[in-house]
Amino acid sequence: MKKLFIYIGLTLGVMTNVNAQSDTKIEKQIDEIINQLTLKEKVAMCHAQSKFSSPGIPRLGIPELWMSDGPHGVRGEINWDDWGYANWTNDSITAFPALTCLAATFNPELSHQYGVAIGEEARYRKKDVLLGPGVNIYRTPLNGRNFEYMGEDPYLASLMVVPYIKGVQESGVAACVKHFALNNQEEWRGHINVNLSDRALYEIYLPAFKAAVEKGDVWSIMGAYNQVRGEHCCHSDLLLNKILKEEWNFDGAVITDWGGTHDTKQAAFNGLDIEMGTWTNGLTSSAKFAYDNYFLADPFLKMIQDGEIDESVVDDKVRRILRLMYRTNMNLNRSLGRMNNVEHTQAARKVAADGIVLLKNKNGFFPIDPDTNIKIAVIGENATRSMTVGGGSSELKAKYEISPLEGIKNRFKNATILHSIGYASGPSAYGREIPSKLNADSLVKAAVNVASKADVVLFIGGLNKNHFQDCEGGDRKHFELPFGQNELIDELLNVNSNLGVVLVSGNAVEMPWLNQVNGLIQSWYNGSEAGNALADVISGDVNPSGKLPFSYPVKLNDNAAHYFGELSYPGDSINQYYKEDILVGYRWHDTKKIKPLFAFGYGLSYTDFKISDLNTDKQIYSKGDKIKVSCMLANTGKIKGSEVVQVYIGKPKSKVDRALKELKGFSKVYLNPGQEQQVEIEISVDDLAFYDEAISDWNLEKGTYIIYIGNSSDNIIQKQKINIK
Amino acid sequence: MKKLFIYIGLTLGVMTNVNAQSDTKIEKQIDEIINQLTLKEKVAMCHAQSKFSSPGIPRLGIPELWMSDGPHGVRGEINWDDWGYANWTNDSITAFPALTCLAATFNPELSHQYGVAIGEEARYRKKDVLLGPGVNIYRTPLNGRNFEYMGEDPYLASLMVVPYIKGVQESGVAACVKHFALNNQEEWRGHINVNLSDRALYEIYLPAFKAAVEKGDVWSIMGAYNQVRGEHCCHSDLLLNKILKEEWNFDGAVITDWGGTHDTKQAAFNGLDIEMGTWTNGLTSSAKFAYDNYFLADPFLKMIQDGEIDESVVDDKVRRILRLMYRTNMNLNRSLGRMNNVEHTQAARKVAADGIVLLKNKNGFFPIDPDTNIKIAVIGENATRSMTVGGGSSELKAKYEISPLEGIKNRFKNATILHSIGYASGPSAYGREIPSKLNADSLVKAAVNVASKADVVLFIGGLNKNHFQDCEGGDRKHFELPFGQNELIDELLNVNSNLGVVLVSGNAVEMPWLNQVNGLIQSWYNGSEAGNALADVISGDVNPSGKLPFSYPVKLNDNAAHYFGELSYPGDSINQYYKEDILVGYRWHDTKKIKPLFAFGYGLSYTDFKISDLNTDKQIYSKGDKIKVSCMLANTGKIKGSEVVQVYIGKPKSKVDRALKELKGFSKVYLNPGQEQQVEIEISVDDLAFYDEAISDWNLEKGTYIIYIGNSSDNIIQKQKINIK
Repeated sequence: MKKLFIYIGLTLGVMTNVNAQSDTKIEKQIDEIINQLTLKEKVAMCHAQSKFSSPGIPRLGIPELWMSDGPHGVRGEINWDDWGYANWTNDSITAFPALTCLAATFNPELSHQYGVAIGEEARYRKKDVLLGPGVNIYRTPLNGRNFEYMGEDPYLASLMVVPYIKGVQESGVAACVKHFALNNQEEWRGHINVNLSDRALYEIYLPAFKAAVEKGDVWSIMGAYNQVRGEHCCHSDLLLNKILKEEWNFDGAVITDWGGTHDTKQAAFNGLDIEMGTWTNGLTSSAKFAYDNYFLADPFLKMIQDGEIDESVVDDKVRRILRLMYRTNMNLNRSLGRMNNVEHTQAARKVAADGIVLLKNKNGFFPIDPDTNIKIAVIGENATRSMTVGGGSSELKAKYEISPLEGIKNRFKNATILHSIGYASGPSAYGREIPSKLNADSLVKAAVNVASKADVVLFIGGLNKNHFQDCEGGDRKHFELPFGQNELIDELLNVNSNLGVVLVSGNAVEMPWLNQVNGLIQSWYNGSEAGNALADVISGDVNPSGKLPFSYPVKLNDNAAHYFGELSYPGDSINQYYKEDILVGYRWHDTKKIKPLFAFGYGLSYTDFKISDLNTDKQIYSKGDKIKVSCMLANTGKIKGSEVVQVYIGKPKSKVDRALKELKGFSKVYLNPGQEQQVEIEISVDDLAFYDEAISDWNLEKGTYIIYIGNSSDNIIQKQKINIK
Repeated sequence: MKKLFIYIGLTLGVMTNVNAQSDTKIEKQIDEIINQLTLKEKVAMCHAQSKFSSPGIPRLGIPELWMSDGPHGVRGEINWDDWGYANWTNDSITAFPALTCLAATFNPELSHQYGVAIGEEARYRKKDVLLGPGVNIYRTPLNGRNFEYMGEDPYLASLMVVPYIKGVQESGVAACVKHFALNNQEEWRGHINVNLSDRALYEIYLPAFKAAVEKGDVWSIMGAYNQVRGEHCCHSDLLLNKILKEEWNFDGAVITDWGGTHDTKQAAFNGLDIEMGTWTNGLTSSAKFAYDNYFLADPFLKMIQDGEIDESVVDDKVRRILRLMYRTNMNLNRSLGRMNNVEHTQAARKVAADGIVLLKNKNGFFPIDPDTNIKIAVIGENATRSMTVGGGSSELKAKYEISPLEGIKNRFKNATILHSIGYASGPSAYGREIPSKLNADSLVKAAVNVASKADVVLFIGGLNKNHFQDCEGGDRKHFELPFGQNELIDELLNVNSNLGVVLVSGNAVEMPWLNQVNGLIQSWYNGSEAGNALADVISGDVNPSGKLPFSYPVKLNDNAAHYFGELSYPGDSINQYYKEDILVGYRWHDTKKIKPLFAFGYGLSYTDFKISDLNTDKQIYSKGDKIKVSCMLANTGKIKGSEVVQVYIGKPKSKVDRALKELKGFSKVYLNPGQEQQVEIEISVDDLAFYDEAISDWNLEKGTYIIYIGNSSDNIIQKQKINIK
């Protein structure tokens, strides 16, 4: 029988629309392609051929899938089969702010701009899948990878992840939301078995992924390294089959984290589609065969040939991969992308400036007049340290990176900028070279000397991208600031009390010196425009409007995960138990009345805002209704600026344990001085349901709910009751 | 003033036709882009950024240009800035036969299939420019790179190059015809200054390039390494400005051969558009800056900034590069390509089988019955040697390569195939390790022993892809067969006179043993399907129909270039003089009555053909007319097969020295046994003009011309006179 081969290159030429999730024409083409594939070809599509690509079908013109690490920029080119950089010179990109910063903007429109920009850069770099964004929930400030995620609140993360995904995918590049799920620590990430309640899973750890799938229409998702309930997340029947593909109707492809597969049969049956890996380093001449040993390679092929696995299993994976391809590398309508253009740079700067959080501002320490001719001492390693280098897979080859010191020097032309490093953390991402005591002392001395001569001291410290700091592959060992920074700040305060602190980090830290400093800014790993954005805020060119996307406990044990001891975090190396259950972050602080150092949603402005006149459109609502919450917001200060109005809702006297309140809506509003505006926030009644383990479904309790409105989780201005029938 | 930036990715989405050479809409878009470019950006586009790419404009979404060596397949991936292979595993391709073989098919339709296939493979491999085909004229059998070209005749090369180009460019991949011009030897290729008459230039060395531009609409062209009349070809005012861009209206981009630029000002003014290079090896960390030192990089920028060169000069280059881009990497309508599909494999095999030339067949030595159960001794290194490896830039990473021995074993299942290597040439492309005399003797002894036991001996030898054989970067040192093959053949004949020779080469060789052997096949570097195609011909599955695309002289001095001594070839290391003028190849043998060993256009078949009834539609023609030449062709033998009817035309009593006759038309006709068919060949009267140096233009002489018809240049069956008014 003569087979009719479809040459994809030609049939695609007439395609006009590839975006519809269920384009029947494309589904038919996919079926036709599958009919033509040999079993070997199908299996080949289900695993990597190199560090960052999986094969197409050359003879049919089906292209390869090329992936790139994100989520803060498109990673530099890596060798085919080892982790060395390929030393290309065309892969320097725009480094965007870390996702913690994006979350801190509380601005979904900026998330869309971010997504569009990074998507265009990925497309220009010929990547089909961008490995991001990350939406694992911030459970502990020790997690080395929190900086890549969107904070502790499922609602905030859900609202911020959707426009990012849509933005990326506009360029015909798939977002790959990660790490699904519960990869909330790096310690033992490869095997730790997470035990938690269905409620915690559904209410806290899954909503952002669900939003990515159902509202973001994300085309791919990355499995997590860890286990849940005894199965690795990359082939978890619960997560991938039951929840992702059945409950949420995800029609894209599930990709492993690199090396996250551990069993062929589970990978085959439990919803994994593409196995990517990491264990073939340097086997250049035999690399091809090394990939043949992947779980979803020859062992998978053999099980199908032996009848242990039905061919329909691989067909489903190939169908999903082809669907992903029709949306990306087989979509001839996608644009060509662009890179390092001014719009991307501006987006990076805007996100960074909007995400920086002003935490303390005694006597108007900030802003500092940009035309001042005073002496400003800039102290601290993070004033000059590159933060795009290090951190693990999110490391970037930035076309440029403005350091805080550069940014300040550029903006404060009339001031005398003195600089001293003050401490040193060691040279490299994975090095942990701590300077000798002698050397450290001399750095401190020099910094103190500089500080003593200045009118104002800006200490720019925090964490960095070294191993055991904010870095993939390990967790922080302590909650305090490392490298002797606390002692250094004390020494600086001894000679100059006019001191403000800028923390650059992706995590909360202990702040024993908080009462002694006049100003405190939480900045983030802010990419190419980091220094300019910081100078924007310090100078007052930008009025800070960032809000903390996670709680800052006073001490580590005030954090819920740590409160319950080692079995809760980090576990016993085999298992861990999320004993705090749903009470993550502010839910814990609120409910248990444990005052945080800084609360979720908190952030100051250079102006003053007044929230008043909380109202709802009705008193009584039913399932399916929208609650229209409104209030008045006034800028009562002297500077234009933005405030984030936050709506939390609580259910007193619930039949289950509930958090005192949960974020259910917010709106970032820009007002001129003296301006007043009505703010309306719409909330779905259905979002007030809890996950009822008794019925394994969401359950909307009837009765009284309390609406809280404020500008942070611990600054509630008004409350109002409503009723659900 | 606010600038409006065009984001190419979006504006391109609505394009519908990019193929028209003068699409005014695209030209307008190009002007708009140029208006937005900085001088630095423009200059950046004019030179390499890596071994095989030149930059786009990232901020405007203008993609990079990626090039790949051809012309026989898409080369394996090379490192960014050194010549090492990048060790990818997705770059194994279909190796197509060398262009000498394609030329030997005398079949333009096969050239189109070849072009389509290699273009699709280039596209699948994400290449925008395929560096080929090569149409330098075969002037001497010593030229190490003849195998990449299309023989000695400008008309044959012109007819064969056009469909190749059109085929490649159907995939939105630019062909890059090379090496423009006069790179007819590898010895001193980097600087040798070619001196020749305008007539030889226009009549012999340029026609194939002209056809590529005017009939093939080729989008790019590669300058040659050598000089002509004191200027390097990569920036020759004569070749690039006057001839290519003014006379022929070439609107594409001129690309250097790698490292072929030598002067910024000449490069700026004399028609070069993109400088590619080769002299930055291994400067990985500073590679970016090394490229800045290219002639068309910082030195070019400085001269423009200093006013020595007008900005319109770089604008013209950028316009041409953008035009090339709109046709390739900015053409969203191009297909995705495909690779290693059965159609490509079949095209490779068909070209190979159709290009193999049967040169001698005493008593029907060939074909050998594929069902025979005799003992066949296969002797000679080329029976098993890979010919896709080596040879210089045309080296390929073939997905597979069927050797002659494999091909014969596969087809002759009932025969006993004995094998002995007989001689050894050394291991590597650039090695010249000649086996020790002792070792050579033992190889001969073993081969003679094997031959003595066989019913028939097939000696499979020739040249190979080693340095100083058929290989870029050096010429052959001698005309004879290397590695002791002549002596070996003699020894074999001593023990078994039933011997046929298969030569695998890209060049003619001396054949002192010709009278003693019963059969002789000229095969070529035939790529992936080499062995299968050879077995097709040996077994009679395919009736040979290839014709020699160049003359085989009896001895080297019978070749025109060598007849005139060292100043003619290879020159005195500074200059060389093409003293044979227009009398290249068969023109020389014919006119000077120097009998070749095998003539241009010669090739036997397993059947017999009869040509008769030569006729023309008129007796008298005028300028602009077409001459319709017809004849009858009959297959008078017992096997179906193809014959190439060749029409040569001569002008007796010309006012200038002319060749006795020149090929002006041919037709390859397939006939069943007993079938007879009228063959019509149309020839433009204008093609009978000579290049008149007195007027620097083509001149159509009036008077009597003689039409010769035959099946090789030395087997003319009939003649007829016509008159040009």
